[in-house]
Amino acid sequence: MLLLKDIRDTPLLWLLVLVPVVLVAEAVRPDAHTLLFVLSVLAIVPLAALLSRATEQVATRTGDTIGGLLNATLGNLTELLIALAALRAGQYVLVKASIAGAIVANSLFMLGMAFLLGGLKHHVQDFNRNSARLQAGLLFLATIAILVPSVVGEPDAGAASAKFTQTLSASLAVVLIVTYGLGLLFALKTHGEFFAAAAHGDEHDEQWPMALALATLAGVTIMVALVSEIFVESVQQAASTLGLSPAFVGFVIVAIVGAAAEMVAAFSAARKNRLDLSVGIALGSASQIALFVAPVLVLLSYVLGPSPMNLQFWPGAIAMMLVASLTAALVTNAGRSAWFIGFLVTVVYLIFALTLYLLPPRVS
Amino acid sequence: MLLLKDIRDTPLLWLLVLVPVVLVAEAVRPDAHTLLFVLSVLAIVPLAALLSRATEQVATRTGDTIGGLLNATLGNLTELLIALAALRAGQYVLVKASIAGAIVANSLFMLGMAFLLGGLKHHVQDFNRNSARLQAGLLFLATIAILVPSVVGEPDAGAASAKFTQTLSASLAVVLIVTYGLGLLFALKTHGEFFAAAAHGDEHDEQWPMALALATLAGVTIMVALVSEIFVESVQQAASTLGLSPAFVGFVIVAIVGAAAEMVAAFSAARKNRLDLSVGIALGSASQIALFVAPVLVLLSYVLGPSPMNLQFWPGAIAMMLVASLTAALVTNAGRSAWFIGFLVTVVYLIFALTLYLLPPRVS
Amino acid sequence: MLLLKDIRDTPLLWLLVLVPVVLVAEAVRPDAHTLLFVLSVLAIVPLAALLSRATEQVATRTGDTIGGLLNATLGNLTELLIALAALRAGQYVLVKASIAGAIVANSLFMLGMAFLLGGLKHHVQDFNRNSARLQAGLLFLATIAILVPSVVGEPDAGAASAKFTQTLSASLAVVLIVTYGLGLLFALKTHGEFFAAAAHGDEHDEQWPMALALATLAGVTIMVALVSEIFVESVQQAASTLGLSPAFVGFVIVAIVGAAAEMVAAFSAARKNRLDLSVGIALGSASQIALFVAPVLVLLSYVLGPSPMNLQFWPGAIAMMLVASLTAALVTNAGRSAWFIGFLVTVVYLIFALTLYLLPPRVS
Repeated sequence: MLLLKDIRDTPLLWLLVLVPVVLVAEAVRPDAHTLLFVLSVLAIVPLAALLSRATEQVATRTGDTIGGLLNATLGNLTELLIALAALRAGQYVLVKASIAGAIVANSLFMLGMAFLLGGLKHHVQDFNRNSARLQAGLLFLATIAILVPSVVGEPDAGAASAKFTQTLSASLAVVLIVTYGLGLLFALKTHGEFFAAAAHGDEHDEQWPMALALATLAGVTIMVALVSEIFVESVQQAASTLGLSPAFVGFVIVAIVGAAAEMVAAFSAARKNRLDLSVGIALGSASQIALFVAPVLVLLSYVLGPSPMNLQFWPGAIAMMLVASLTAALVTNAGRSAWFIGFLVTVVYLIFALTLYLLPPRVS
Repeated sequence: MLLLKDIRDTPLLWLLVLVPVVLVAEAVRPDAHTLLFVLSVLAIVPLAALLSRATEQVATRTGDTIGGLLNATLGNLTELLIALAALRAGQYVLVKASIAGAIVANSLFMLGMAFLLGGLKHHVQDFNRNSARLQAGLLFLATIAILVPSVVGEPDAGAASAKFTQTLSASLAVVLIVTYGLGLLFALKTHGEFFAAAAHGDEHDEQWPMALALATLAGVTIMVALVSEIFVESVQQAASTLGLSPAFVGFVIVAIVGAAAEMVAAFSAARKNRLDLSVGIALGSASQIALFVAPVLVLLSYVLGPSPMNLQFWPGAIAMMLVASLTAALVTNAGRSAWFIGFLVTVVYLIFALTLYLLPPRVS
Repeated sequence: MLLLKDIRDTPLLWLLVLVPVVLVAEAVRPDAHTLLFVLSVLAIVPLAALLSRATEQVATRTGDTIGGLLNATLGNLTELLIALAALRAGQYVLVKASIAGAIVANSLFMLGMAFLLGGLKHHVQDFNRNSARLQAGLLFLATIAILVPSVVGEPDAGAASAKFTQTLSASLAVVLIVTYGLGLLFALKTHGEFFAAAAHGDEHDEQWPMALALATLAGVTIMVALVSEIFVESVQQAASTLGLSPAFVGFVIVAIVGAAAEMVAAFSAARKNRLDLSVGIALGSASQIALFVAPVLVLLSYVLGPSPMNLQFWPGAIAMMLVASLTAALVTNAGRSAWFIGFLVTVVYLIFALTLYLLPPRVS
């Protein structure tokens, strides 16, 4: 009942009807790549929203620490599931593009649109600059960390270099996951007060019973996994039909689709003049991609992928990630925002997206 | 009378006598490239000062909004006129160097010298860090925006890449001009209070009659255009005679000559302990080059130039522009300045200029 | 007596016994490269600590200005002596790696560990953000300055480019040393109040007689020079035996050994909740490497080296130096620290070290 009521009250969730549609379409017309691509993209959006709601519900019921842990770990579950489907299919260009794209989309598009939407309603918005700076600092360091193999490794060098990049990527993945664990200890145990605003998100919602929450979490995870599978199978053909490069699909479409649920939350908080929450969601989610999702994918590629995946990104992606994390640091530095700042940050994102859209496809 | 009084009171304007000299010299000795080059550079400086004064006078008479618009749009008119002359002559290396050089000269040399000159008179100077951060953030984002084609495009790739870079540059130019328009809306209409210090510049001056102001504006614009023409015709020969590379001429000489009038204003404000105004002029002018002058030149190249111009800069220019905008963000961040900070920022500019001076000329 | 008492009270100084050991070992077994390498590294650590103590003692006795000058100039004497030994041996890769490594180790490892060690004892540590920002700004500008030849010069270009890089490096060295001199004027004469915390370091210590302090300073300098000689002679053979690349040895081992004494001081200040002092030592020492040690080495290479040394670094070193100075700016910006921030900064350093450790040795 509660679940149905939630669905009825949230127009976004009406898109859930597309989930059976895409599964049926896949069975009946497995070759209609473009149709399957569009349907699966549209079906993932409400699933991601539901996934994030179920995670929150489970988190509320399990006490502060475990709940925080769940929220933090499952916050980017959709991105992770899509990337896993691409990983299993060996589409490493898509996986890497979606990692880079998620960091850039979170720290430019989500942050910029939150500033813009909030600024259109409120003349000037102030937020806690100390926690914003701390989170921007974490994001910058996390971005630097995952970029080390790209900057130091040389793509054109021979086998020695490839082996070096792989060893470095794997070692780095372990270091990043340990760092992520300590970061959770910091955020949930020793210094929770810095992240307080972000933690007490949407407490006004009705609570679901534990069984419902867990069942939804499990069920929706399976559905996201299934739809992601269809998405990844159809994306390459569909992209070439629609004239899109795999870089654009991974960097822009997967990233925005995967982060749709967080975006809704961040934008709604900005409209309510709670920019602390928006900044926390945007920067926190971007940091999590770098410190958790990316290294988990590297390690899982040893088990699930056709060959180990490294963390070497193409130069444009490196530049965009660096710019995104520096921009996030510079614009949150003042602790104050107005609509044009949000517009400008969003424009930088749109310029990146435009560039990838225009980029001639290449053999990679 | 007022105009003559202004000229008499301002030693810089005595150089106006060089304007007829250069025009006569061009008619009599069209081959004396080095002489014409030196004379035209010296003649542009007082014209730029007069142009900026006439613009202010027209702006004062036309009310806050239109006046602000005029001030903002014509603030870099000299740079635009010089670049246009170079554009018509198809000297795109010079055009691009003058764009990059103007951004770097404004955000390093003008800012640094203002800090240094102010700091030699005042022990410590405080300025409004919030509006400085906002302007530094705008400048950083504007710089990133015009650098996207350089970072993503590959100079050595074939025709597909050249077409991509051109399409991207043209699309980007449109996006930047729209952004610039919204920025004016922000600065003049919705959030004028952030830019208040910069707007109320030199209100102590005597007012000119409207007819005088408009006539001066029109007449001086034509003279700047004529002298720029001579400058551009003579620069290549003169530079090779003087052993200067086109990059050095565009990046250093054109940029400093074009910004001479704003520099006088920024330095004088710094000496009067009004660093808010200096920072506003320096960073505002740099942002305007990126968001307005550069895209206007790209679009006009379709009409006026021998072939469309793109926004691809050479790697050294990219590095210098990024460093300049990051430096501006870092040094204005504290909202406090002292002489050595200004010295250091100026030294970074001088090192850039020295590098371009020493750089062996290359076939480009 | 005082000297012996100091040695007895400081366990680190017990390692001084290794100084005669390494000198004897060199005479008896000149071919035991690995042994000599390990012994000389271990012997330099207590010598550096003693050198820094003697410098402080002389400085205390010679009044504020000369004392400050001495402290500032001799603060990185150990790094300078090691680099000089490498310079005379013509090992420019090692010299450059130790310059880059010292900047990175000071601004990432020393700062990060100070934040971490301080944060493990104190929940949140506040420090003066204004002087931290000023010092981070100086460090950023100093880093940019020494990186100009690397960014503009092209390693693969021909003789014209090599000559250009050399001329630029030498001119730059002169500019940097003049800048350093003016920086001392700023820090010691005109604006000492910004650096007050760092100046009044360890005043609780007993004072040595002037003769003892000067004699120790002279004697230890000679010993460091002798041991550095042995270190440089043995390092290449030992590194290849131990499987370490010269880049790793210079960048990590030399940098940390050379800075050991300052690290002890910075960490101890952090534990005492005097982060201002830690930040001052870490960033000040990094700036000094860029503005003083590096240009002095370039100029001395004309006299002492087999051929002039330039300031062109390999791309990975450029990236690491830029990241280090940007990170220092970002993390000191908030004026507040907690353990995880220190951990994260340290992790970035460790990732850099790990990368250099894994890097396959190349012909350079």
